Amino acid sequence: MTTTAGAAGSVAAGLTGRMFIGAERVDGTGTEVHSVDPRTGRPLAPPSHHGTTTEVRRACALAEEAFDAYRNADPQRRAGFLERVADNLTALTDALVDRAGKETGLPPVRLAGEVVRTTNQFRLFADVLREGSWHGARIDPAEPGQAPPGQAPPGRTPPARPDLRQRRIPLGPVAVFGASNFPLAFSVAGGDTASALAAGCPVVVKAHDAHLGTSELAAGAIRAAVAEHALPDGVFSLLIGDGPTLGTELVVDPRIQAVGFTGSRAAGLALVRAAAARPRPIPVYAEMSSVNPVVLMPGALAAGGESLGRDFVASLTLGAGQFCTSPGLILGVDGLGLDVFVTTAARAVTSTTGAVMLTAGIARSYQAAVAATAARRGVTIVARGGAAAGAAGGQAVLMAVGGDDFLADPALQDEMFGPAALVVRCRDLAHLGTVVRSLEGQLTASVHAVGADLDDVRRLLPALELRAGRIIFDGWPTGVDVGHAVVHGGPFPATSDSRTTSVGSSAIERFLRPVAYQNAPGALLPGALRDDNPYRIPRRIGGKLLPG
Amino acid sequence: MTTTAGAAGSVAAGLTGRMFIGAERVDGTGTEVHSVDPRTGRPLAPPSHHGTTTEVRRACALAEEAFDAYRNADPQRRAGFLERVADNLTALTDALVDRAGKETGLPPVRLAGEVVRTTNQFRLFADVLREGSWHGARIDPAEPGQAPPGQAPPGRTPPARPDLRQRRIPLGPVAVFGASNFPLAFSVAGGDTASALAAGCPVVVKAHDAHLGTSELAAGAIRAAVAEHALPDGVFSLLIGDGPTLGTELVVDPRIQAVGFTGSRAAGLALVRAAAARPRPIPVYAEMSSVNPVVLMPGALAAGGESLGRDFVASLTLGAGQFCTSPGLILGVDGLGLDVFVTTAARAVTSTTGAVMLTAGIARSYQAAVAATAARRGVTIVARGGAAAGAAGGQAVLMAVGGDDFLADPALQDEMFGPAALVVRCRDLAHLGTVVRSLEGQLTASVHAVGADLDDVRRLLPALELRAGRIIFDGWPTGVDVGHAVVHGGPFPATSDSRTTSVGSSAIERFLRPVAYQNAPGALLPGALRDDNPYRIPRRIGGKLLPG
Repeated sequence: MTTTAGAAGSVAAGLTGRMFIGAERVDGTGTEVHSVDPRTGRPLAPPSHHGTTTEVRRACALAEEAFDAYRNADPQRRAGFLERVADNLTALTDALVDRAGKETGLPPVRLAGEVVRTTNQFRLFADVLREGSWHGARIDPAEPGQAPPGQAPPGRTPPARPDLRQRRIPLGPVAVFGASNFPLAFSVAGGDTASALAAGCPVVVKAHDAHLGTSELAAGAIRAAVAEHALPDGVFSLLIGDGPTLGTELVVDPRIQAVGFTGSRAAGLALVRAAAARPRPIPVYAEMSSVNPVVLMPGALAAGGESLGRDFVASLTLGAGQFCTSPGLILGVDGLGLDVFVTTAARAVTSTTGAVMLTAGIARSYQAAVAATAARRGVTIVARGGAAAGAAGGQAVLMAVGGDDFLADPALQDEMFGPAALVVRCRDLAHLGTVVRSLEGQLTASVHAVGADLDDVRRLLPALELRAGRIIFDGWPTGVDVGHAVVHGGPFPATSDSRTTSVGSSAIERFLRPVAYQNAPGALLPGALRDDNPYRIPRRIGGKLLPG
Repeated sequence: MTTTAGAAGSVAAGLTGRMFIGAERVDGTGTEVHSVDPRTGRPLAPPSHHGTTTEVRRACALAEEAFDAYRNADPQRRAGFLERVADNLTALTDALVDRAGKETGLPPVRLAGEVVRTTNQFRLFADVLREGSWHGARIDPAEPGQAPPGQAPPGRTPPARPDLRQRRIPLGPVAVFGASNFPLAFSVAGGDTASALAAGCPVVVKAHDAHLGTSELAAGAIRAAVAEHALPDGVFSLLIGDGPTLGTELVVDPRIQAVGFTGSRAAGLALVRAAAARPRPIPVYAEMSSVNPVVLMPGALAAGGESLGRDFVASLTLGAGQFCTSPGLILGVDGLGLDVFVTTAARAVTSTTGAVMLTAGIARSYQAAVAATAARRGVTIVARGGAAAGAAGGQAVLMAVGGDDFLADPALQDEMFGPAALVVRCRDLAHLGTVVRSLEGQLTASVHAVGADLDDVRRLLPALELRAGRIIFDGWPTGVDVGHAVVHGGPFPATSDSRTTSVGSSAIERFLRPVAYQNAPGALLPGALRDDNPYRIPRRIGGKLLPG
């Protein structure tokens, strides 16, 4: 038995270390695990035990059982449920901030903001449900012809067209993997869970081992809302387990119909491969790896290399660089402006005092990634920040390399998850364009430019569009607004499916598919497709889009 | 050198047997191939030669070169191009019907209808381009806050929100595989090509060896439109080659960004696997296999078992049963009504005179599939139709099996591509429900019901929704209307991606992905996202959907 700290706090928050299999609290029978306070290295009570195949199967069976009732619940009712989750999370703010702080080392102000972001996501999807575009309702009215309805051979003129109505239905139970770096907004009650629940999919979450207590609290908030809205038990379960074993079992369970994941490229690709090898493959939405290139145009550097350097380091070191959108790659054209930028940034990096990273394991991986990059041909270390004490201590690092060396070495595009960045010095804008066109897919690409740069940016823009999900002008990538227009996605390897976003209202579309009803009796039509449009939702009638 | 027939016809139509690598006509250097008249078994002139890696690479390189100019062309111009393709195909109607008739054995009236369907698809996507919803335009206006734009940390209250605008851009060059069974509407100028070109994706088609002349004619119509609209050469190419070799090379070419396919389960899965194994995986839209279950409810059987039996055989034998949506599985509850249905259907099958199938190979596969099903435990042959002469002759077959035997043997769900169907006799409606819940994914499910059946149908409907892309009431599945509400898709193995349809206006969405622009200068915004909405398209502003 390992000694554990913080027992009083865990009791106050009612933590048990148990999983939720539907409404039931279940102890695992596998490996004992604890969250660890990365600032002290001490384990946190209560201990948990990893679940096994038994719990995976039970959670998935419950989810499948719940699916029809949940997906056919009135959208208003589902919206109320999502809002109740938000209310329950809000009521737990103090406990969440306290526990997540102990488990991640992230500061209270950041975590309090993350609670708000998390509840906002649930409220956004409640709005999405009520607005109703997510139904994808389309009606092509019947047109008379010579053949009986439903038997018009293709292409006959004039065709007898049947009455055809299309809506989208949820895919089925969804597996969600909690991410380490946003213990609330991308974890148990994160955007994947919120959008899947909004779509009408029961959710089975695998908690991240690094914040088990926070996971239990968030799961409790969701479970309470399930009970308060008298929804079927299987709508939500929380599993605790090993990623490669329990996580894979979850993804290959035949009842799971889609997967949401945020994490490393290796872990994401393992899930993608497991899902593709199923007898019946399913979609995996894995958000994996991005170095988020920032292009500093010559005019912008000339106008403000210094302030760009300072702002860059503020973005780089936000959350100890553990943002999916941390700016890890800076592209600029050699010259005085870039020199000023690098000098200022170096000074800012040097003056950082170091930060505690999320886990000792992440800190080790980060140090290894930095060492690997620093050892590549042509790479120089420009500045190092101070180091925080302890096994989870992280240190900001700024490196530089010439454009030709960068082009010659694809390994320099590898993500270093943490506060490290590489400046690529290009000879001229043509060289910079070549570097941009060599880049892998990214979540974001940023451009700093002034009026004189615009024509050059216009020429660069098509290459950026094809490589990133979000293009930021005159800003830094480390803010992801939750709204309707945001894209948190991008071409491989940023994600496994560039056609989607994991943040914002469009995220619901990942968990839906279209179904058409041909000549259906009115009494059997779903609400979204009834003639009287009872939900008052936007629909496309005969090809024409009508607002609700 | 094989002797070839119909040389005069091929000269009249200007057939050369060559590929189109962009505008260039290229002879392959691989295996010599001919289309074959399935009615006579004689090869048709001119001969072609399979292409090799060289042609795949050249076509893909040209497609990539063309991509930026093509995707950034004004949507009006792309719409005009699609309409020109339709006009060019219409002008070729006689040649297309003549050549496709020789190559497939399909009757002129069917093929003339298919030309109209094919041109209608291009015209539909021209309308889709002009209507503009495909842009997926969303604008979240900036909101002031305390932090500079772009640097709002997640969850800060009240947030400084940047100006965020989202649109969808095309994925890149698309590989399309021509299908054998619709030599026009699902082939070179079929729905995959039309929707990919509409999305702004250059297309590289692999022609189906069974109708090389028809493919060349259709490709010529597209190529002429490319030239007439002064679009880049690489917008369209036509390759001739072996599926397992040239087809796979095409799918793994790094410049190809998506794949459209209609054909067999084995071939579709091979392409899915090849695409997933790429260093950078890409989506594959493979429409593969469906037995299109038809549920005959007791009331409907009692009211009209005889007419149902006749109409069923008419649908089953349409196009010699070579429709993706051919009704291959009939589910009913034992009793007088089902007996009358089976007796009438058996009589109708027996009186069929046989049909020429598309190729001798398809006829062989069909006979093997029928023999394999007939040999399974509990299966009886109820009726056989007359057989057409020749190697490509096909014969309608009606078989029956008890529900328990069906449930015990998953092989009975295998598609028999051709005019064969299996009647599953169930004990009661509960038994029928169990059979429905045992089914794999399907393109369609049909239900025949009268008023007294409606409550039972309501209970069955959720299981049908989860297993089919289109649910047909009181009709037969062999008509697929091209419109806005149709779904030609469905859960695996009907397709490899149930979230999409390969027919109808929604098919364009398969080839698009979202990109967000944050705080972009007005001068750099794409037309779809400019403040003045120059295309007058529907957009979502601050979450609210505004029609164009």
